[in-house]
Amino acid sequence: MFEFRLQAQCPVTGARAGEFVTPHGVIKTPVFMPVGTQATVKAMAPFELEEIGAQIILSNTYHLYLRPGADIVEEAGGLHSFMDWHHPILTDSGGFQVFSLATLNRVTDEGVECQSHIDGSRHMMDPEWSMEVQQKLGSDIAMCFDQCLHYPTTKEEAETALARTTRWARRSKDAHTREDQALFGIIQGSVYEDLRRRSAEDITSIGFPGYGIGGLSVGEPHHIMYEMLDVLQHVMPFDKPRYLMGVGHPSNLVEGVARGVDMFDCVLPTRNGRTGTVFVSTGRINIKNQVYARDFTPLDPSCDCYVCRHFTKAYIRHLYKAGEILAARLCSWHNLHFLIKLMEGVRESILNGTFPAFRKNFIEVFHGEGDSVENESL
Amino acid sequence: MFEFRLQAQCPVTGARAGEFVTPHGVIKTPVFMPVGTQATVKAMAPFELEEIGAQIILSNTYHLYLRPGADIVEEAGGLHSFMDWHHPILTDSGGFQVFSLATLNRVTDEGVECQSHIDGSRHMMDPEWSMEVQQKLGSDIAMCFDQCLHYPTTKEEAETALARTTRWARRSKDAHTREDQALFGIIQGSVYEDLRRRSAEDITSIGFPGYGIGGLSVGEPHHIMYEMLDVLQHVMPFDKPRYLMGVGHPSNLVEGVARGVDMFDCVLPTRNGRTGTVFVSTGRINIKNQVYARDFTPLDPSCDCYVCRHFTKAYIRHLYKAGEILAARLCSWHNLHFLIKLMEGVRESILNGTFPAFRKNFIEVFHGEGDSVENESL
Repeated sequence: MFEFRLQAQCPVTGARAGEFVTPHGVIKTPVFMPVGTQATVKAMAPFELEEIGAQIILSNTYHLYLRPGADIVEEAGGLHSFMDWHHPILTDSGGFQVFSLATLNRVTDEGVECQSHIDGSRHMMDPEWSMEVQQKLGSDIAMCFDQCLHYPTTKEEAETALARTTRWARRSKDAHTREDQALFGIIQGSVYEDLRRRSAEDITSIGFPGYGIGGLSVGEPHHIMYEMLDVLQHVMPFDKPRYLMGVGHPSNLVEGVARGVDMFDCVLPTRNGRTGTVFVSTGRINIKNQVYARDFTPLDPSCDCYVCRHFTKAYIRHLYKAGEILAARLCSWHNLHFLIKLMEGVRESILNGTFPAFRKNFIEVFHGEGDSVENESL
Repeated sequence: MFEFRLQAQCPVTGARAGEFVTPHGVIKTPVFMPVGTQATVKAMAPFELEEIGAQIILSNTYHLYLRPGADIVEEAGGLHSFMDWHHPILTDSGGFQVFSLATLNRVTDEGVECQSHIDGSRHMMDPEWSMEVQQKLGSDIAMCFDQCLHYPTTKEEAETALARTTRWARRSKDAHTREDQALFGIIQGSVYEDLRRRSAEDITSIGFPGYGIGGLSVGEPHHIMYEMLDVLQHVMPFDKPRYLMGVGHPSNLVEGVARGVDMFDCVLPTRNGRTGTVFVSTGRINIKNQVYARDFTPLDPSCDCYVCRHFTKAYIRHLYKAGEILAARLCSWHNLHFLIKLMEGVRESILNGTFPAFRKNFIEVFHGEGDSVENESL
C-alpha cells in the first residue's frame, strides 16, 4: 500500500526526486506540506489548496485530540472526510506540542502527564495514546511519539531524550496496527553529530517505511542544522522518504533538498501570511509598509498565482490596515503557492539534472548580495 | 447608459421584477447586494461572490475616504479595479456612517463637521464632499448625501432632517457630473406617514434615475417599517428602481418586495456568518451550539452551495470553537448564498405569477408556527 520510488538523484548534491505512494494518492517529492493544525490550513479552503498544487497536508494530533476530539473525527469518517481533504494527510505524533504547549507535570519513560493549554484538563500522553489517536484520525502517514528538545540543550539531556525516543519508537510500532497508515520513525539527537548517528542507527534498526528528522529548526543557527543534515544523509536509508520536520523557510527547503531531504512542513507561509510578510522571488516583503500604499503592481510580478493575477500591493496593504480577513487569505495563498511552486521547480531541476544551478540561482536571487542564508535567524 | 426595465408585476401584491442597466452589467431585480464596507465583502473573495451569483455589491464612501483614501482608489483605476470586482457597485453617500460612527462636532445645513472614528482627524462632510469622493471611487450607482436619523426620533427632528435631506439632494445633483454613474435620491421622514409622503414628493420632484428609502431598519418594529413601505409604494415613481437601504433579514426582503422594493443591502449575512449564526430554510441556527458537535449533516440539507456540498455542521462548529478563519468564510458564504438564492426565487415567482404563494410558503417555513415576523426584533 506504501511504496517509495526513487526517480532521480543529483550527481553533485544529495538531492533526489521520488514518489511516495499512499492510499490517498501519490506524492511527488521533494514536497512541501502546508500545515492544517486544527483540521484546516489557516485561512485556506481545500479547493484553494488543490488549485495551488498542494499534494499532502499535515495536521496536529495533540490539537485534534483536545478539540474536537479524536472520536468525533473518527465518527465523521476520519480526518479526510471531516475536513474535506481527499488527498494524503500526515499527522504528527503530538509529541512536539506536548512539550511546547501543554503544562508538563511529569515526564517519565512511561509517558507525559500534562495539562491542556486550552482548558487545563489533565492527560497522559504516551506512544500508545499517540497511536490510538492517529489511527482514529486515519491519516496516511503517522509519526512515532518522540521527545523533542529545544535549542540549546545539554548533551546529557539530548542523550536521555534520544534513548527515550528510541524506546517510544518501539512502543509506537508495537501499538500501531492500521495497515492503510504508514508509521514513520523520528530521529533525534539535538545538534550532536554522534547522537544523531546513534539515533539514526537505533531508529532505522527498528525499521519504518519513512523517517522524520526531529529536533531541528528549533532555534539553532542554519549552519548547524545543515551540518546535522550532512551527517544524516549518509546514515539514513536511501530507499525511504526523509522528512525534515518543521522547516519551511525557502532557502532551508532548497538547502535541505541538497542534503537529501524529501519532505518538509511548516506553519511559516500561513503564519507570515497572517502578519503580512510575503515571500517574493527576491526575498521577503512586509505588505504593511507605507512604501506599498500606491504600488499598483502584484505582490510578485513573476508569480502566476490567483493573488498576483488579480490584486495589487496597494489593495492588499489596504486590507491589512483595515483588518480584513481577505488580507490573511490572499497572503497565505500567495506564500503557500510560492513554496509549492519552489518545490516543483526544485523537483524538475533534479529530474533534468540542473539542480545545482537552480539552487545557486535561487539562493542568489532570494537573498541578494548582502543577505546570506547563514546570517538569517530561523 | 442607465435604464430600468420593468418586466413583470405581481397582480396581488406590489412585487415587481425588472432589470437595471449599468455600465458594468445588467442587474436583475429584486436583488440583494452584499456589503463590501472597506472594498471587500468580509471574508469573501470576488470569485466566490461570482459563484454565488452576486450581481452588485455595495461599498461605503465614508470608510474608503478615510482608508485608503479616495485618491488611492482613483489612482488604482477606481473601485472596480482596486478590489477586482468587475460587476456593478453601489456606493452609499457616507451620510449614514457620518451620523453613526464619527464623532459629530457640528451639524448645519452646510454639512457635518466631524472626527474620524479611526484616528480622530477632522473632516467637513457635505453633499459636495460626498459627490467628489463617490465620483473618484467610480461606482455605478452613487447615493445623495442625506441626514439619517435613528429610531425613535421626534417629528420635529424628523422634519428638520427631511428638509435638510431635500436641500442636500439638490446640492448632490448639482455637484454630480459623472455620466457613467447614476445618482439616486434618498427619501427620509422617519416613521411618520405624512413626512414620508412629503419627502417622496420633494425628492422625486428633483428627479433621479432611482430612489433609496433611508431611515428604516434603524430599530423600529417590523410592522412600522412595513407601514412606511405601504405608503411609499404608491407615491414613488413606478418606472424607477426602489432601494430599501440596510435591510437584509430574509423575511424583510420578501415583505419588502411585496411592497414594491427592488434593491436591498445589509451586513447581516456576513456579520452573522462571523458570529456563527446561519440562515437555513427553516429559520436560523447558531452553529456554536453543542447540539451540532456530532451533527454530520450540512448546514442546510436543502442548500446546494459549496459549503453545504462539502462540509458538515460538526466540522464548521469545530472551526468556530477553534477560532479558525475558515469558519467565518464558510458561514458568510452560505448566508450570502441563502439571500441571493432567495431573491432569485422571489424574482422567478414574480415572473411566473406565483409570488403570493412563494411569499406565504417562505414565511411559514422560515418562521415556523410559533415565530411570527412581527415579534422578531430587527
